[in-house]
Amino acid sequence: MQSHPQIHVEYPSWIGEVVAFDALLASREDRMRLAIRLARENVLRGAGGPFGALVVERDSGRIVSAGTNSVLRYNNSVLHGETVALMMAQQRLGSFTLHRDDFPAHELVTSCEPCAMCLGAAHWSGVRSLVCGATRDDATSTNFDEGPVFPESYAYLEERGIEIVRGVLRDEALAVLHEYRERGGPVYNA
Amino acid sequence: MQSHPQIHVEYPSWIGEVVAFDALLASREDRMRLAIRLARENVLRGAGGPFGALVVERDSGRIVSAGTNSVLRYNNSVLHGETVALMMAQQRLGSFTLHRDDFPAHELVTSCEPCAMCLGAAHWSGVRSLVCGATRDDATSTNFDEGPVFPESYAYLEERGIEIVRGVLRDEALAVLHEYRERGGPVYNA
Repeated sequence: MQSHPQIHVEYPSWIGEVVAFDALLASREDRMRLAIRLARENVLRGAGGPFGALVVERDSGRIVSAGTNSVLRYNNSVLHGETVALMMAQQRLGSFTLHRDDFPAHELVTSCEPCAMCLGAAHWSGVRSLVCGATRDDATSTNFDEGPVFPESYAYLEERGIEIVRGVLRDEALAVLHEYRERGGPVYNA
Repeated sequence: MQSHPQIHVEYPSWIGEVVAFDALLASREDRMRLAIRLARENVLRGAGGPFGALVVERDSGRIVSAGTNSVLRYNNSVLHGETVALMMAQQRLGSFTLHRDDFPAHELVTSCEPCAMCLGAAHWSGVRSLVCGATRDDATSTNFDEGPVFPESYAYLEERGIEIVRGVLRDEALAVLHEYRERGGPVYNA
């Protein structure tokens, strides 16, 4: 009888060189700068796609978790930067939702507007705000498909109380997508 | 310094009592019957939400992987039945896509039409067909939110070659949603 598969996910070994987990990131630009740095390091170290994300406490800026695109590293198409950051935040806090009366509000910061899967994952996660760098068009122009995300998708989240902030440090975020393409990184979902 | 969180996912301990991994499920009704049974067992054993899924080889009906909603079991809102089944299939095959020239076509069978996250996950996974039991309206009527899924979302997948089949054994699938509600199971994303 064959053994059953198991899923195991850890941060990349270099996470501590990039993320100071005891830091406070006061501004949204500070938070996005780190998400973009995660995306870039993921590319430079050959660890995966050019996408990084963070979960922070919205008001204090305390870092709860980080995520890098880990599709190639783990042969797992669910492991985008956002899903990894959300799963790590919930694991750390021991809760399947980040939206609880005894928790501060949480924010997902992502170097690129989320794909359909990650937009849905953000919704279920309990984050109260979603902060994006590069746009869907930026992703598409560098050959990444974002899937079935529509203006109504964002409206759906906003109607349920999730604040959406887009275009933070967009140019810097887009630059990482270009770097990835120039290095010939695989586009695994073209 | 605190240790980093890690994600670990296994099948529930009773999976072998429910799924015969060497079976061939020829018809879509046979496949759906098993997805529904996974959903029901998940409820009866108090393991999580009333949702089950399978990945099978589309033409042979060989079972590649199974998934049960594992949100409560692992405190992880990403772990729906479909995402678990897809991750397990990719882990078993050692590939971040199920759509390769050296693979047979794969099919995702789910006891209920997928939420926004899982529809996106299905798209990235490389499955070539998506077979659904209960409908979005069935889920909504039993207090489960499916998130931003629109008719255009399904069209997006179909335009990219993914066959969509809906309403297979719908009544049996809906019955499990009702059972869950009658037992007072938590609706974790209301």
